[in-house]
Amino acid sequence: MSISVSTPPSVAFLNGQFSAENVIKKVTRSGDLRGVFHDGDSWQAISPETPIYEVEMLRSPQGEGELYAGVTHLQPGRVGDEFYMTRGHFHQRREQGEVYFGLKGAGLLLLQDEKGDARLERVSPGSVHIIPGFSAHRLINTGNEILSALAVWPSIAGHDYASLTQGFALRVVERGGKVQVREVQNG
Amino acid sequence: MSISVSTPPSVAFLNGQFSAENVIKKVTRSGDLRGVFHDGDSWQAISPETPIYEVEMLRSPQGEGELYAGVTHLQPGRVGDEFYMTRGHFHQRREQGEVYFGLKGAGLLLLQDEKGDARLERVSPGSVHIIPGFSAHRLINTGNEILSALAVWPSIAGHDYASLTQGFALRVVERGGKVQVREVQNG
Repeated sequence: MSISVSTPPSVAFLNGQFSAENVIKKVTRSGDLRGVFHDGDSWQAISPETPIYEVEMLRSPQGEGELYAGVTHLQPGRVGDEFYMTRGHFHQRREQGEVYFGLKGAGLLLLQDEKGDARLERVSPGSVHIIPGFSAHRLINTGNEILSALAVWPSIAGHDYASLTQGFALRVVERGGKVQVREVQNG
Repeated sequence: MSISVSTPPSVAFLNGQFSAENVIKKVTRSGDLRGVFHDGDSWQAISPETPIYEVEMLRSPQGEGELYAGVTHLQPGRVGDEFYMTRGHFHQRREQGEVYFGLKGAGLLLLQDEKGDARLERVSPGSVHIIPGFSAHRLINTGNEILSALAVWPSIAGHDYASLTQGFALRVVERGGKVQVREVQNG
């Protein structure tokens, strides 16, 4: 008998490009990120069409226990002195974790728990980030090239942006050519 | 103020080696795999100490929603005409899925649902395997070098080997220098 062997999607670990028939893509532009960067004037000065990051996802089955795989490609750049970053979110299903793998570029993963305690992990090619449940997470590109990170997360996790209206407790800015982390006093 | 930035574990995508302070390792040897290969005489002839595969895992938080990351390194070789493979398992929590990424070497991922329907996906560097819930899974090394695959799976998934006492519906053997897939009639 002949048994068919299928060739699944693939990902290039060097840059996070998927080869697959059906990749879901979502671009987030500057105009989508109102209130995210601390310098509103500098944000206003940028064309709202400026792409900040793109997420590519493979199609997965849906339901409790099923997992997604996707890649985030975050552009290099700054809004004022603040490095480009993703909006960041808690999972709607708070207990659901996620795993990130750095693929390309240099940056930081900002993690924050529900009490507001924040910490940073260095993202670089091959870095492995076990994001526990109950943790908001945001990628920040502190380098000069695209920051690409591969992620695996539960399909039922969902996104909750609303609980972060006061923002993250840390901001990452450029100061005198260096990466500086500032604690936020009020949003 | 000074905010500490931590350096997380890393994985070499070229061979699946983790760099981390605390990697959990488990070696599975020929002697652990009684009844797994179809040729019992050839299995008996191999030293039970022969390492067949090793799983390396990072430490993760435990609990509903938390995720593990680990790498399986499967040796090349055969028991009789049958290629080295992992034991394979359903998740104890049947609905829990898993994602595999091929890193190194060449092989097959055998997937089988609860009705016994089986299929094979080609594993190669960069291949992405979305393993749905309710699917038993087994890696098979059909190449001449170690087959390494990175996996992410829910910490609460667990392993259920007992439901596979009748084995998988397909066996992968070497026949005349080629990889051949055989359908199993009875275990």
